Formats: sequence, C-alpha cells, structure tokens
Amino acid sequence: MRKFNYPIMPEIMQRWSPRAFSEEPLAEADVLALLEAARYAPSCFNEQPWRFIVAQTQHELQAMQDLLTEQNLAWAKRAPVLLLLIAKRTFTEGGKDNYWHMFDVGTAWGYLSLEAERRGLIAHAMGGFSRKRTAEMFSLSPDLAPIAIVAIGKLGDANVLSPALREREKPGTRRPLSETVMKH
Amino acid sequence: MRKFNYPIMPEIMQRWSPRAFSEEPLAEADVLALLEAARYAPSCFNEQPWRFIVAQTQHELQAMQDLLTEQNLAWAKRAPVLLLLIAKRTFTEGGKDNYWHMFDVGTAWGYLSLEAERRGLIAHAMGGFSRKRTAEMFSLSPDLAPIAIVAIGKLGDANVLSPALREREKPGTRRPLSETVMKH
Repeated sequence: MRKFNYPIMPEIMQRWSPRAFSEEPLAEADVLALLEAARYAPSCFNEQPWRFIVAQTQHELQAMQDLLTEQNLAWAKRAPVLLLLIAKRTFTEGGKDNYWHMFDVGTAWGYLSLEAERRGLIAHAMGGFSRKRTAEMFSLSPDLAPIAIVAIGKLGDANVLSPALREREKPGTRRPLSETVMKH
Repeated sequence: MRKFNYPIMPEIMQRWSPRAFSEEPLAEADVLALLEAARYAPSCFNEQPWRFIVAQTQHELQAMQDLLTEQNLAWAKRAPVLLLLIAKRTFTEGGKDNYWHMFDVGTAWGYLSLEAERRGLIAHAMGGFSRKRTAEMFSLSPDLAPIAIVAIGKLGDANVLSPALREREKPGTRRPLSETVMKH
C-alpha cells in the first residue's frame, strides 16, 4: 500500500503503471493532448531535446511491438498506442553535448504521464526494448538516443494477464523520504 | 505567447520558470510535499534513482549558492530553498549501469515542478553550477551524479532583476508538435 505523508496532486497520488490494457483505441485528440503536455515541459536552455514517434495503425504498432522484449510484449501488445521517446544528445545551437538530454525527456514524460491520468488513460514506460534495432528501424542519427517505449491506452481487465503479472497489477510503493534525502 | 492546441492540465499550462524570487521563506510542509510528489514518480524497475539535498538554512543556502554560475547566482540568491537533484548511476540490485538514471530523475523533477505550481510556488531548475565542486562539497561517491540545482520559492517583484533578466521574465514558448513528432 502506498503511504502519503503530504497531500499532493491527485494525478500523482492515483497514477501507477498497469499492464492490463484494454484494446479500445484512443481518440486522436487524447493522443495529441498527451504530446502537448509533454512539449510544455521545461528544459535546459529550452532546447526541448525530446522527439516522439507514435505508433497507432496496425502496421506501425506491429513494427514497434517487434522492438520490445518478450516480457513487455506479453502485455504491451494490447496497447492501442505505443510511443517511442527519443532524446537529442547535443544542443542544436553550438552542437555541444547536452548533459541534460535524458533528464529533460524524463520531465516531458512526467508531464505526459500525469495528463494521461487526468484523462482517465494509462501510460506505462518500458526500458525493455532493443535500442539498436530501434535506431536501425527509424534510421536515427547517432545524435538521437532512443530511451523508452510508452504503452498508452485504457485500463482493461486484469484477467487477460498471466497469473504472475496479475500478481504485480497494483500501485508500486516507494522508499521513505528519509532514505532519499541526503544530509547537507 | 504560448499557444495551446489541446486543453491540458492547468498546472502544465500555467507553469513557467521565473527568476524573480521573493525572499519569503517556505513552510516546511510545502517543501516536504514537493519531495513527496517527486518520490512518487515512476522509474525503471522502481529503482527510484533520485537523491535530494535540500538547502534552506542560511548556512546551507550559502554553501549551495557558492556552486552556482554567476549568471544564476544573480537571481537564485533570493530563493529561500535550493534543492540539489542527484541521480544514482547504477542499479542497487546487481550494480549494473542504469541507462535511465537521468531520465527517471527528470520525471521526478517534473512531478515536483507541477506540485509547486499547484501550491502557488515557483521552481526553476538550473544546469549552471559546478558539478565537480558539488561532488566534492557533498562527498558524492562516483555512483552519484549531480544533475541540477532547483531554486524554489514564491514569485517576487520583477523589479529586483537586472533589465536584461527582466526582459526574459515571461513564459517560454515551444516548438510546434509538427517539428517534434518524427515520421514512423
């Protein structure tokens, strides 16, 4: 059970990462609103290092599903939308390495995840996919780092999951702040 | 002027990164609620790679201010709270490199920034500080990467800023989605 010591945004308190996706398609306006939320994240020098590739047709979904690990595919194959999050490694002005490229894309993903919750949708980011085959499939330049594939959709019936995954189908807990805040 | 094509969370639409901080101190419950929001971010394998160091006494603030670039110090010196965001580079179980350590801390920062907005506070993340001196000052092990120092407080009078900074004291705009979404 999650324990909250302070009242915070309902979207943060209620959001978790389910695996039981419904196959029901999403409205285009919902998908675009999630990207709208993501693009308004702050970033270093307002570089906006995030890039997105959206898979929602049968053909696009199939291609992106093929990049997932077997464990993720087992549940994520039902998601009506898969979204590849990409980070641009260098600053567009000057071309120097952007130390914050991953950090900033994480912020954008955070905004997207809360907008999904607000809309009654679920979003589950996966690190388990082939970054090498992703870069090949989408002909990503070396400057573009694939980070995560996000499954987006609506919550479905947990009975579609294997017993092992059904067991894990609940909000994850967190370390207490006392183990996260370091002494000055 | 910002342009929104889809209705999204008011906290996302309204949040921006001001530099005009009031020197008014924050309630301890506000500061802890921001950290509470951050720690409920999702992360790869629920590793929660974020660590925080909070500066809020005069002594702590002085020490953290000394790490900032001159440009950031000029305005961030008024913030009543400075928060150092740190990412743990390796997985605690197994010790392998965590490719997503920066990404996940970015998500936690995103949650914190929206909770700040919800509470009528402002939060501005800075990349401009000495990571080397930060690691030394806090004796960070090589496994802990300093990422950003966040100034947290309440919005103050823009007249305290230099004319150059006052000019920039408004919400930043964003690239249109058409330049951010890559073709499948």
